[in-house]
Amino acid sequence: MAQYNIALIGFGGVNRALAQLVAERNDRWQMELGFRLNIVAVTDLNLGSVVSPNGIDACMLVETKFERGGFAKLSGGSTEADNEKVIRQAPADIVAEATFTNPDDGEPAVSHCRWGLESGKHVVTTNKGPVALAAAELKALARRHHVSFEYEGAVMSGTPVIRVARTMLAGAGLTGFEGILNGTSNFVLGRMEGGLGFSEAVSQAQAFGYAEADPTADVEGYDVRLKVVILANELLGAALKPADVSCRGISSLTAADIEAAAKDGCRWKLIGSAIRREDGRIEASVGPRRLALDHPLAGVNGAINAVSFTTDMLGAVTVTGPGAGRVETAYALLSDIVAIHRAAPARMTKEAAE
Amino acid sequence: MAQYNIALIGFGGVNRALAQLVAERNDRWQMELGFRLNIVAVTDLNLGSVVSPNGIDACMLVETKFERGGFAKLSGGSTEADNEKVIRQAPADIVAEATFTNPDDGEPAVSHCRWGLESGKHVVTTNKGPVALAAAELKALARRHHVSFEYEGAVMSGTPVIRVARTMLAGAGLTGFEGILNGTSNFVLGRMEGGLGFSEAVSQAQAFGYAEADPTADVEGYDVRLKVVILANELLGAALKPADVSCRGISSLTAADIEAAAKDGCRWKLIGSAIRREDGRIEASVGPRRLALDHPLAGVNGAINAVSFTTDMLGAVTVTGPGAGRVETAYALLSDIVAIHRAAPARMTKEAAE
Repeated sequence: MAQYNIALIGFGGVNRALAQLVAERNDRWQMELGFRLNIVAVTDLNLGSVVSPNGIDACMLVETKFERGGFAKLSGGSTEADNEKVIRQAPADIVAEATFTNPDDGEPAVSHCRWGLESGKHVVTTNKGPVALAAAELKALARRHHVSFEYEGAVMSGTPVIRVARTMLAGAGLTGFEGILNGTSNFVLGRMEGGLGFSEAVSQAQAFGYAEADPTADVEGYDVRLKVVILANELLGAALKPADVSCRGISSLTAADIEAAAKDGCRWKLIGSAIRREDGRIEASVGPRRLALDHPLAGVNGAINAVSFTTDMLGAVTVTGPGAGRVETAYALLSDIVAIHRAAPARMTKEAAE
Repeated sequence: MAQYNIALIGFGGVNRALAQLVAERNDRWQMELGFRLNIVAVTDLNLGSVVSPNGIDACMLVETKFERGGFAKLSGGSTEADNEKVIRQAPADIVAEATFTNPDDGEPAVSHCRWGLESGKHVVTTNKGPVALAAAELKALARRHHVSFEYEGAVMSGTPVIRVARTMLAGAGLTGFEGILNGTSNFVLGRMEGGLGFSEAVSQAQAFGYAEADPTADVEGYDVRLKVVILANELLGAALKPADVSCRGISSLTAADIEAAAKDGCRWKLIGSAIRREDGRIEASVGPRRLALDHPLAGVNGAINAVSFTTDMLGAVTVTGPGAGRVETAYALLSDIVAIHRAAPARMTKEAAE
């Protein structure tokens, strides 16, 4: 039986949900998955940090109130997050990075991942920033240090998408994908179909907790664009930057557009897509598209996400599931750790052979 | 670079499509997947058999006319299929079993798999019979001989379903599934929604090549029942036999039923499902169900299949894709071989440790 020591970077909804799962499910994981998780360090810009080589009680962590410097009350705790020191020095096998996504340069999350990999730790993240903006560097770093860099949760939370396409569709001749990759905008479009105007629909999304106070990244397509970059680079071997992906959001759609589509038996969806052209070029875009009702993505409603992969051998294969949520995203981190656990003997063999 | 010697058992549509892929894609597979396939034996009840330790030219095989004893014309060929001798003695690493599914005892396919595993060969199959009726025995045999028994194509052809649930949803708390698992009956229901009666719709499915001359297994749910047995045993740890699964088909649905559902904003689908009850019991059934249009399976039309997994952590995760087709099913065999190839270092490590 394996036990992995884990450092949680960022203690917002996602890593808090992971800590809760550790508190509730370690025994079950030991039986079903063959490993336990032992939290040895946590940092958070607001709460501070806590390091304990023997392990921190997960229940106690989860009960920590979200107040400035709160971790200082715990044994081994400090009011300072001190991310670099904790990531480099904590006796962790795995760093779970779940801080805020910065869409410009991915920092400080890119540095968090870098410090983890450089110090010989596996890194799992649900953060789009480092994956969309620095994947090549971070993957090279992981290879050099014989550790894994995994990020299933960067697209569609815990719904298996990146790993399905990379491993389960290997050899199927993947030529492109199109997806509904933002639950907020999909919810807003649904409400507009129900008769609301754009602003009213956004207010309702905010009231339900789907949209943030500033909904720009969701409704203008910027969030989807990062996901398109990730999927295109990961699955189609592209080397896109966000600026390479044309991007239009849904804010310009009017009630009249929605109505006209419905009259023609169609429905507007915000679609992120990429395709490999005959000459090898990858074309990627984000924008509202009118789909016929029998299109595989037309029936994906509410906060649910879906991505449809186009393949030579199977035609379209579509995966539909949650695109967000705390537990759903924490599960993505767990699924990354499962992948690391499964790769362990292969990696050890490889190292022995080198 | 690895090369796997492969024996094709049954040379109908599926293994013929696999041979065609070998002819066209070996170089590409070598680059993308890290292995080539070399066909060293083929048997077919009608064509006979051919064995050639150095490999049989795949193009030549594909061009062999489908006539009684046709393999006798090839070097190393015979008019007899001689399955047991070929499977046991051919110098193959992998046996690809794609003969006819016998829903009563799974024979002769069960024996084909048994002979392969007993003689230390990996077995990949697209045949529901051995998996639904003899999986426990065959898996034990595979373990004993340190080889793999893989059968992704037994459900939804090459669409990744069994392996997705088993590996990608590990630890997600799978509690059940429901699926549209038979393209023929789904096509028939679609035509009935278009105004045809049941018999007319079946005739049209036959004309399009979706339904066989005797459509009983498809429209009465027997085909779906075998798939439910496979998924429930594989993913929920059940030990079901087909007789444990209640089964009703779509032949009793009338035009009036279809119309009444449409009036209520619903749609009939033939659903195969299983669920783990609180007391641990697995309940499984096949039958027509009226789905509201916002149900994740309501929009799955035509010959497309889908299965929706219910999980504690992610809610519903649905995989949609082709449920049949020659190339699509041949791809399932390839995906099984990819899984064998990937497991190779781990297996070798394990064997070395034993």
